[in-house]
Amino acid sequence: MKSFNQILEAIQQLKSNLHANDFLLTWEKTEDELKQTLLVAEALKFLRDQNISTKVFDSGLAVSNFRDNSTRTRFSFASACNLLGLEVQDLDETTSQIAHGETVRETANMISFLTDIIGIRDDMFLGEGHTYMQEVGNALDDGFRNGVLPQRPGIVNLQCDIDHPTQSMADLMHLAEYYGGLENLKGKKIAMTWAYSPSYGKPLSVPQGIIGLMTRFGMEVVLAHPEGYSLIPDVVDLAGRNAGNSGGKFRVVNSMDEAFHDADIVYPKSWAPFEVMQRRTQLLKNNNKEGLKALEQECLANNARFKDWECTEEKMKLTKEGKALYMHCLPADISGISCAEGEVAGSVFERYRIETYKEAGFKPYIIAAMIFNNKFRDAAGILKKLNERGLKRILG
Amino acid sequence: MKSFNQILEAIQQLKSNLHANDFLLTWEKTEDELKQTLLVAEALKFLRDQNISTKVFDSGLAVSNFRDNSTRTRFSFASACNLLGLEVQDLDETTSQIAHGETVRETANMISFLTDIIGIRDDMFLGEGHTYMQEVGNALDDGFRNGVLPQRPGIVNLQCDIDHPTQSMADLMHLAEYYGGLENLKGKKIAMTWAYSPSYGKPLSVPQGIIGLMTRFGMEVVLAHPEGYSLIPDVVDLAGRNAGNSGGKFRVVNSMDEAFHDADIVYPKSWAPFEVMQRRTQLLKNNNKEGLKALEQECLANNARFKDWECTEEKMKLTKEGKALYMHCLPADISGISCAEGEVAGSVFERYRIETYKEAGFKPYIIAAMIFNNKFRDAAGILKKLNERGLKRILG
Amino acid sequence: MKSFNQILEAIQQLKSNLHANDFLLTWEKTEDELKQTLLVAEALKFLRDQNISTKVFDSGLAVSNFRDNSTRTRFSFASACNLLGLEVQDLDETTSQIAHGETVRETANMISFLTDIIGIRDDMFLGEGHTYMQEVGNALDDGFRNGVLPQRPGIVNLQCDIDHPTQSMADLMHLAEYYGGLENLKGKKIAMTWAYSPSYGKPLSVPQGIIGLMTRFGMEVVLAHPEGYSLIPDVVDLAGRNAGNSGGKFRVVNSMDEAFHDADIVYPKSWAPFEVMQRRTQLLKNNNKEGLKALEQECLANNARFKDWECTEEKMKLTKEGKALYMHCLPADISGISCAEGEVAGSVFERYRIETYKEAGFKPYIIAAMIFNNKFRDAAGILKKLNERGLKRILG
Repeated sequence: MKSFNQILEAIQQLKSNLHANDFLLTWEKTEDELKQTLLVAEALKFLRDQNISTKVFDSGLAVSNFRDNSTRTRFSFASACNLLGLEVQDLDETTSQIAHGETVRETANMISFLTDIIGIRDDMFLGEGHTYMQEVGNALDDGFRNGVLPQRPGIVNLQCDIDHPTQSMADLMHLAEYYGGLENLKGKKIAMTWAYSPSYGKPLSVPQGIIGLMTRFGMEVVLAHPEGYSLIPDVVDLAGRNAGNSGGKFRVVNSMDEAFHDADIVYPKSWAPFEVMQRRTQLLKNNNKEGLKALEQECLANNARFKDWECTEEKMKLTKEGKALYMHCLPADISGISCAEGEVAGSVFERYRIETYKEAGFKPYIIAAMIFNNKFRDAAGILKKLNERGLKRILG
Repeated sequence: MKSFNQILEAIQQLKSNLHANDFLLTWEKTEDELKQTLLVAEALKFLRDQNISTKVFDSGLAVSNFRDNSTRTRFSFASACNLLGLEVQDLDETTSQIAHGETVRETANMISFLTDIIGIRDDMFLGEGHTYMQEVGNALDDGFRNGVLPQRPGIVNLQCDIDHPTQSMADLMHLAEYYGGLENLKGKKIAMTWAYSPSYGKPLSVPQGIIGLMTRFGMEVVLAHPEGYSLIPDVVDLAGRNAGNSGGKFRVVNSMDEAFHDADIVYPKSWAPFEVMQRRTQLLKNNNKEGLKALEQECLANNARFKDWECTEEKMKLTKEGKALYMHCLPADISGISCAEGEVAGSVFERYRIETYKEAGFKPYIIAAMIFNNKFRDAAGILKKLNERGLKRILG
Repeated sequence: MKSFNQILEAIQQLKSNLHANDFLLTWEKTEDELKQTLLVAEALKFLRDQNISTKVFDSGLAVSNFRDNSTRTRFSFASACNLLGLEVQDLDETTSQIAHGETVRETANMISFLTDIIGIRDDMFLGEGHTYMQEVGNALDDGFRNGVLPQRPGIVNLQCDIDHPTQSMADLMHLAEYYGGLENLKGKKIAMTWAYSPSYGKPLSVPQGIIGLMTRFGMEVVLAHPEGYSLIPDVVDLAGRNAGNSGGKFRVVNSMDEAFHDADIVYPKSWAPFEVMQRRTQLLKNNNKEGLKALEQECLANNARFKDWECTEEKMKLTKEGKALYMHCLPADISGISCAEGEVAGSVFERYRIETYKEAGFKPYIIAAMIFNNKFRDAAGILKKLNERGLKRILG
């Protein structure tokens, strides 16, 4: 484990342009920027673990804009904001799901007069979430440039239709801790595979986030899914290019067994096919309830053909020494526990349950680091100040 | 622009009795008190812009009691409270819309044990909102007098059936900034006019707030609306008296053109006729859904007769040098953008869009000033202390 | 009234094990622990009344988990958390009312990474609420032990199916203040009696909490209800044992008059019979709406047979010198005010209204004390530090 000073020194050696830039997609960030995010997260965790206050904001709002239900990410965002001293204010847009244009431009400014950060989750509609975040960003630029806003609130993507950077970065932090450093991930084989679930319509952003990020660090990333369960083609292409650049590997296979073979890490998780999500988005836009029901039936029937895509004890035996690290963004569909047949066997999940909890536990710090880097140009300097200030988080 | 010390000196020269008094209607306040509200808002904005903390509360709750939906005012209130160090706690009374009597008396105390301020929005029912706020105030007086409450929480009217003081005061602050000082408003002509909207039931509190406030500062206030679209008669009478006292002018006309003629400022905004709001309130109380639908149809049909009450480029040409300042409390019904035909032409709105955003941006500071003055007798002294304390809002 | 130093000295003489232990049932706590809770509440109130900050947390979340509607307890919890520096984050579980097992274990950890306290209200289902709180506690133990959580959040029971400790402790604090000390309660007669209400399904936790707690301090506790309106038998047994141990008395009678006779304190409040709550729980679990309606009709009809169980002026004359202290957890069903016929006559309630408000006013401090004791082993030492630190709650 690095000392606090080593973390600061490591940050200082990086070239990064995170300050005043939104965190929307991991592949818009350089490797140095991704590393800095991990390091700042580590530093904030270190300080809190030492009961040292990391409150850098005396006041200020953090807007929580969830266009979809969420407990975990909502709590992670609230925890991160509180850790830094920001107060969360919820923006409820349930009644205007796909609001665009004038409404977005105006609302973005109206909620931002005294706001430092905006966290957005918008993963329901393919082609919408990322676009919406960009629109909000443009509206904030406009407001800031024209003197409406005294500061330009940063945006953190809490899950869109394309990427889920707070999840994938927390996953990466978990791997770095598990293997004793980011550099040790080089050459490790990770199987990001589709798994059976009795539900439908799960977003693509987690698998896309994983293949888009893990290919940056020299890993061997295998994406596995039944035929027809493709992800957004652009993201798949990008994963390939990433692997080429980082000295890693990337391939797509249609066999869970092949993906699991000799894998160091497995990430079995259900999602809906890209093509289905496109049809679904269209039906949702048209509020076609009949069509949505029919599509759901069709998909569930199709899913049912692949019930053997389950992370069983047998499948785990295929992995490296039978001991691959099991990962999941939670909640998992656990066979015999949360559903009759699902993504993972009960015994496998239970063996890695604590690890998946720890994996999730990095998310508040990752989000806090994203906020921190967005607001402070000299992240290392501010962290140093916090440590020297030495205010206690809990009086003692 | 005044220096911080000039602001403090200006405050010290005023006689005000804002301390421990609720802010319900601007016409219950003296001119000095209105000026102090603007000055404190200016001072708080100055400090925040200098990254100086304005946290005067180390802890304490601010109750947000919205009996109607709202995003903008809700965020303004939350921003104001956070700026001063209060934590907002929502009181959801949707299920007991017109609760009165015992329930109000008891609830007001139950939510106030550790509460410093209560913000209330209650603009749905004519004859209800202001009365409700007074009832809450009496209940708090009773609780404080009898030792139930260790402090008497102040009340800020976030919009009632009669007035919308946080809006009109933010509008006034905007005008004072735009024209370089409150004293420069003397003689300026402002047209508060009805405008066509494809919706119905918009509250009267904004136009009433504007004519009730702007007549205090020697302006020439013209209220324009089609015949039958009257405001509450008492408020119209009061506007006339205000104008007489301040050396200004006030008149009511039935022509948008006449109001726009040579105007320095135009404020075109839809509202429902007073008489309609009275019938609507009765129907709402009786939960008469048939009646409400019929009334809506009748009103929309009536509105449709006045589609030419739109703030078009032609109408703008009637104003002083064709360059009157366009104002709106937002969101506006923008023709061709948020609706087919509405209150204002797209090109006019776009030209003044940034100004309307800035106008809205004063609201958090106005609300903060109302809270500040309610809690501190020596506002200037406390502001001075904040500046001397010099705590940073964001670490740096 | 004790001085601050006397309070600290009194705390130091107690043996308590409140640190790192959940507060679920008063009868799981020793008398010393109950006394310490009252004393810390008193100390926190003293400091706040002197405008001294009691913020012991610089940051940290407090999860508010209400599985039932509540305004009063919600505000009390929010006030308590704010007083200590914790930010409340709501966990909305309305859609998963009786979630258990894996879901509880996982969710408990997912919301707790940076959480210091969890307040839970779960009083709807007999046999569920307390069990749920224990399950959450076990999940947190598991997460803390396995390194998932950097701290073990404490749990405060904000009302379960068995006990309502924040209410009964606030009631006890009220009595201690009213009679000038806990020791003066010895020998006082308190009548915890059923009273008529035109509603049904009110939980048993308040009367159970009262008989379970007041029997600890040498009081003469009389539980009165019509035949068939029993409480959970185990709790009634426990009250008897408590009385034996404390030198007090406990008996159950079927006459309101008998209970009121010569009583120092009366606590007339409606509840549903234990046996009815058992049937209701079963129907709720089966989502049997027909059955629930039928049960409601049956119960209301049964209730109607006991309309004379009302705390009238005549009944009050039966009490000691006709001047017993009337108590209620609020809101009361007040005859002629909140309902036609209810628990208490309007004139009786009005005479004691302010006292019932004061009674409620202790709840935020009781909750804060429970949190405080849970987090700090040396409560007196930390209180001393707060006083010496002398930060002002409101700048002045």
